[in-house]
Amino acid sequence: MTIHAVNIKALVVKESSILLSLTVYNNSSGGGLLSYSESQSESITGPPASNTNSDVPAKKKVVVLGTGWGGTSFLKDLNASLYDVQVVSPCNYFAFTPLLPSVTCGTVEARSIVEPVRNMVKKRKGDIKFWEAECLKIDHANKTVLCRSNIGNNLVGSGEFSLEYDYLVVAIGAQVNTFNTPGVKEHCHFLKEVEDAQKIRRAVIDCFEKAVLPSLSDEERRTNLHFVVVGGGPTGVEFAAELHDHFQEDLVNLYPSVKDFVKITVIQSGDHILNTFDERISLFAEEKFGRDGIKVQTGCRVLSVDDKNITMKAKSTGEICSVPHGLVIWSTGIATRPVVRDFMEQIGQGKRHVLATNEWLRVKGCESVYAIGDCSSIDQQKIMDDISAIFEAADKDKSGTLTVAELKDVLDDIIVRYPQFELYLKSKHILDLSTLWKDSEGNYREEIDIEGFKMALSHMDSQMKSLPATAQVASQQGEYLARCFNRMHQCEEHPEGPRRFKGSGRHTFLPFRYKHFGQFAPLGGEQAAAELPGDWVAMGHSTQWLWYSVYASKQVSWRTRMLVISDWTRRFIFGRDSSRYPNTVYMQQPTSNTLTQRTPECLSTSYVSQRYTPLTARKLLERRRVREEDGQRRKRKKKLLGQWRSHDQ
Amino acid sequence: MTIHAVNIKALVVKESSILLSLTVYNNSSGGGLLSYSESQSESITGPPASNTNSDVPAKKKVVVLGTGWGGTSFLKDLNASLYDVQVVSPCNYFAFTPLLPSVTCGTVEARSIVEPVRNMVKKRKGDIKFWEAECLKIDHANKTVLCRSNIGNNLVGSGEFSLEYDYLVVAIGAQVNTFNTPGVKEHCHFLKEVEDAQKIRRAVIDCFEKAVLPSLSDEERRTNLHFVVVGGGPTGVEFAAELHDHFQEDLVNLYPSVKDFVKITVIQSGDHILNTFDERISLFAEEKFGRDGIKVQTGCRVLSVDDKNITMKAKSTGEICSVPHGLVIWSTGIATRPVVRDFMEQIGQGKRHVLATNEWLRVKGCESVYAIGDCSSIDQQKIMDDISAIFEAADKDKSGTLTVAELKDVLDDIIVRYPQFELYLKSKHILDLSTLWKDSEGNYREEIDIEGFKMALSHMDSQMKSLPATAQVASQQGEYLARCFNRMHQCEEHPEGPRRFKGSGRHTFLPFRYKHFGQFAPLGGEQAAAELPGDWVAMGHSTQWLWYSVYASKQVSWRTRMLVISDWTRRFIFGRDSSRYPNTVYMQQPTSNTLTQRTPECLSTSYVSQRYTPLTARKLLERRRVREEDGQRRKRKKKLLGQWRSHDQ
Ligand SMILES: Cc1cc2nc3c(=O)[nH]c(=O)nc-3n(C[C@H](O)[C@H](O)[C@H](O)COP(=O)(O)OP(=O)(O)OC[C@H]3O[C@@H](n4cnc5c(N)ncnc54)[C@H](O)[C@@H]3O)c2cc1C
Ligand SMILES: Cc1cc2nc3c(=O)[nH]c(=O)nc-3n(C[C@H](O)[C@H](O)[C@H](O)COP(=O)(O)OP(=O)(O)OC[C@H]3O[C@@H](n4cnc5c(N)ncnc54)[C@H](O)[C@@H]3O)c2cc1C
Repeated sequence: MTIHAVNIKALVVKESSILLSLTVYNNSSGGGLLSYSESQSESITGPPASNTNSDVPAKKKVVVLGTGWGGTSFLKDLNASLYDVQVVSPCNYFAFTPLLPSVTCGTVEARSIVEPVRNMVKKRKGDIKFWEAECLKIDHANKTVLCRSNIGNNLVGSGEFSLEYDYLVVAIGAQVNTFNTPGVKEHCHFLKEVEDAQKIRRAVIDCFEKAVLPSLSDEERRTNLHFVVVGGGPTGVEFAAELHDHFQEDLVNLYPSVKDFVKITVIQSGDHILNTFDERISLFAEEKFGRDGIKVQTGCRVLSVDDKNITMKAKSTGEICSVPHGLVIWSTGIATRPVVRDFMEQIGQGKRHVLATNEWLRVKGCESVYAIGDCSSIDQQKIMDDISAIFEAADKDKSGTLTVAELKDVLDDIIVRYPQFELYLKSKHILDLSTLWKDSEGNYREEIDIEGFKMALSHMDSQMKSLPATAQVASQQGEYLARCFNRMHQCEEHPEGPRRFKGSGRHTFLPFRYKHFGQFAPLGGEQAAAELPGDWVAMGHSTQWLWYSVYASKQVSWRTRMLVISDWTRRFIFGRDSSRYPNTVYMQQPTSNTLTQRTPECLSTSYVSQRYTPLTARKLLERRRVREEDGQRRKRKKKLLGQWRSHDQ
Repeated sequence: MTIHAVNIKALVVKESSILLSLTVYNNSSGGGLLSYSESQSESITGPPASNTNSDVPAKKKVVVLGTGWGGTSFLKDLNASLYDVQVVSPCNYFAFTPLLPSVTCGTVEARSIVEPVRNMVKKRKGDIKFWEAECLKIDHANKTVLCRSNIGNNLVGSGEFSLEYDYLVVAIGAQVNTFNTPGVKEHCHFLKEVEDAQKIRRAVIDCFEKAVLPSLSDEERRTNLHFVVVGGGPTGVEFAAELHDHFQEDLVNLYPSVKDFVKITVIQSGDHILNTFDERISLFAEEKFGRDGIKVQTGCRVLSVDDKNITMKAKSTGEICSVPHGLVIWSTGIATRPVVRDFMEQIGQGKRHVLATNEWLRVKGCESVYAIGDCSSIDQQKIMDDISAIFEAADKDKSGTLTVAELKDVLDDIIVRYPQFELYLKSKHILDLSTLWKDSEGNYREEIDIEGFKMALSHMDSQMKSLPATAQVASQQGEYLARCFNRMHQCEEHPEGPRRFKGSGRHTFLPFRYKHFGQFAPLGGEQAAAELPGDWVAMGHSTQWLWYSVYASKQVSWRTRMLVISDWTRRFIFGRDSSRYPNTVYMQQPTSNTLTQRTPECLSTSYVSQRYTPLTARKLLERRRVREEDGQRRKRKKKLLGQWRSHDQ
């Protein structure tokens, strides 16, 4: 039994079910963040629908909003024969977003990274209906969604319709966050949709074509060729790197007369680019950009953008400056869509930033609506909120005090329900639970009372972090939810979740658990940096090849897989003047402080580049993971997950 | 020495120079139309430029407008080191238009059929400057062109500039002709540029997505899925066929619920579709369309189009009817661009439909401006206008009468200068010149006087036809002109053209001579019909493969060649449910009246489909041509060239 974990800018290995094998100290989640919380009604079924007739109950109506990472991974794994499934999305294709930056420079064709939704659903068993339309409103009281298509306004039919649901799966992602900066909507390019990428591609060429015209001054040429990237996250950095490559490898030959006028600037409000990555990667990237002549301007906030200038403020000095630009790419984070905001008002979440779900991905305060991906965030249950219930449940002999042995009896359930417990132990290198029983002077105690228990667990909730807004998260959530939908009856009869500390019995399902597979940052010039599970950091040439192979292996269908591979091949043949091949790989283990140049068996150049079939790459990673699990490397990185999600900025 | 003849919807064979080998009865131009006329000043050089200094004359400035078929074929063959070359075009790529219809349905990707102009010019020896801008005005008096770029209006620099020229090559093509039909501009799609094709592709899918929405009535679905093609020429027919294939092979599986609502209608004002082709091909196409359920409505003129309906009039009955549509493709012909119209006013051609050039492609009434391709038309010199001069030149002994022997002495020059002479003889099956000397009673005469000579030649000018507006013509003209520019000095010293009948000496160059390589009409379902030189007509499955191979062989660069081949491969693998392979080929020779099913060696299925490398296909064609030239088949089709050009409709 496998869960198709999705890598994105991440290494992904096929993983035996993470849902069923939770054992504390042997669990080797590479720092995967676990998110759970209390809920009495996480049951997927909800109240029986009214329209069932006594003999053959009508199939429950499932409406899915969105066909991005979350929506499609849900649909791919759902047993559609069990439900009456309808899908609504304004986009009739799924886009493989991690390759969007490559589309901006023509390394990969747009067509290659999109997969028509109809192709995908046609292959599913059961009948899935797809409507190319936008959801305008979720009407929670009436359990309907109002939709409208805005296709071809010459075509006949109003295009408005509403759908009833028994279950609603909201997977409509998020929109670009401009932080209300004046002029951004009008004068910046975004990099969120496939059309955005295509527009950027054309706009870059336009800058060059304009710059070479006979009538311009040097100053004008320089301005037209100043490319500004706002946001030093993975997307912004990758775009800057792609653009630099594109320039060095292709454009310089086509527009030789203006090659000295080109400038790329990355503006980052934080102190470092790629600040969700390991520090070493940030530095590696900054150094590489420095060598490449890409200017990195950190600690700067953009105040406004107009058609000619971008105005910003240095955080440290308060200085304001205005720089002329040819093209600005805005890539700073995401915000909640209006339709979700409206829904949040309806269900009493109006004061929140993001739609909150429980750990079973059900929207809080609302039966039968589930939300996955960028549009939602899991609201983890705090240990301290349930501390008395936990104490009571653990205190079997009702003595009013707890021994270590008593705690061990309920440990499995605690860890599943409150993953911060495990993270805390790991972060403090606590191997023996009795450490928690020490008093303030460091003496071991036999038993502790409720106050002592509260004290011992008081810092654990600080380990909770919200999940990043990544494809990795969205797709794992989609898979998880599909699995729950598929096994609903089975699990209602035989609950598989942890015991309920508040209330009785067990939870129907294990809560959603996110498994982090690391992240990738392509840095241009066939180089990339990767953060792998188990605190490995890889930087260098082969990493790019590894990335290619993993991407290829995770392409949604055989069709897109072939297309992307052939795009890359085309690029090597036609897109550049001379091909470069990977030659060295720098590997660094976290415990060592020196950057050693080595070619470990599992990542050696020849091995990876010569045999970089998807399968091989996956096997390599799996092998590494297994070795790691053997307990060779126990130290975990603390800063595993970043704040790429900027909802809460 | 080879001229890179360009096939387009046409079979093209590499041809040893057609310019140098003109001998009457051995010349086997498969009905190629020859266009020549009188000119005293066809010299390419014109008056010496004023800005030459005495020692090293400055290079002459050549400005080329347009980078379509004409412009790029000129640039590809020009020895750019001899001139100071500047190119102006609003499009920074060349588009392989014959494959545009395939882009509308995704059979071929847009990127695959475009070649960046800068890639092309970078490979030329000498320095060619390219400006992405539109020519706004040709200022003939000052020998300058005024240009403006409308790239990225946020970019700095006005983008206006003017260029001086010593020679100007106008190759800016033509625009869509709406015949001022109301609503066409607003509500129809055109199929002229690459963006048009991409828009159509999206619009077709939109029609389907809209049609399946839950809120529509059957009538509305039917309307949204009514695709109307106005114009039954090769482009319209190919588009209809592609759309039908796309529907049958892909869309029917993705939108099964609306498959019975789809309808394709081709509206043609003439009596038959493909009326520039051989009649047998027209009928074959109409029959095939009938079987496919594509409605062909001939003899109908469109009166107006609005967003919901298209209104037309049956020519025969005068009946007017209005039909609801989902999408209309307008593909009826071409018209002169405003900038050319303005130029025509300046040089006294204001009353003409199309810019006229002489047979050396120089614009009439205007030194040092040349025009090629769709924007111009060759104004052939009539024999009857020069009849006295011809008589005088032939009458060597000044006897006032002409013998057959005297005519034979100047025959070569006549035939080069007035190709209608040769065409006339062929059309009348006249093998012996003395036939012309017969009197009205059919008796042979020894000598004829000027009146008799006029009578004998009086019908010859009826053989003149203007060249069709095809890529084949444009690219041959570009090659021809480049060759003249390259050999200017050489030919001024040693003129290679025919004798001047009016005036003395010889013409510097041989006039442009068009060689027709036949035409292709893809009809969908892997079928196609081809008209080959030598009156061959091929219809059936293999023809399509042949077409593929020829197209592939004529792709502009290795890059696009590979891309197109890989697109086709992708389509076979991913774009259809089951691949079909060619199995039979129907060949028909014009002399036979029965449609015989045969697989001649040179076109046999296995041969073509298994070994369809570009080279093989070319060799096959060459072999056939040689055989034909051996005099096996002498009968020429009369209706060789059609009126695809609709300038003069
Ligand atoms: C350029 C770029 C690069 C990225 N690179 C990576 C990477 O390398 N690794 C990684 O893990 N993540 C990456 N991400 C992030 C990743 O794409 C997102 O986290 C992921 O797409 C979230 O999935 P989702 O299903 O929540 O939303 P989305 O994938 O955004 O899908 C939302 C869907 O909802 C539809 N929709 C929108 N509005 C409505 C409406 N009103 N009604 C119905 N449907 C609607 C949309 O059409 C879309 O189909 C990248 C993102 C971008 C933009
Ligand atoms: C869909 C389609 C299919 C076709 N199929 C075939 C076929 O199978 N076989 C065949 O022989 N022919 C075919 N043709 C016809 C063929 O494309 C044309 O005959 C050919 O392109 C004419 O070449 P040209 O150089 O004159 O003009 P074009 O190729 O149209 O090029 C004109 C150039 O001028 C540029 N330009 C426009 N305005 C200006 C300006 N103001 N200043 C400067 N530059 C300007 C344009 O950007 C373009 O680069 C097809 C045409 C279409 C539209």
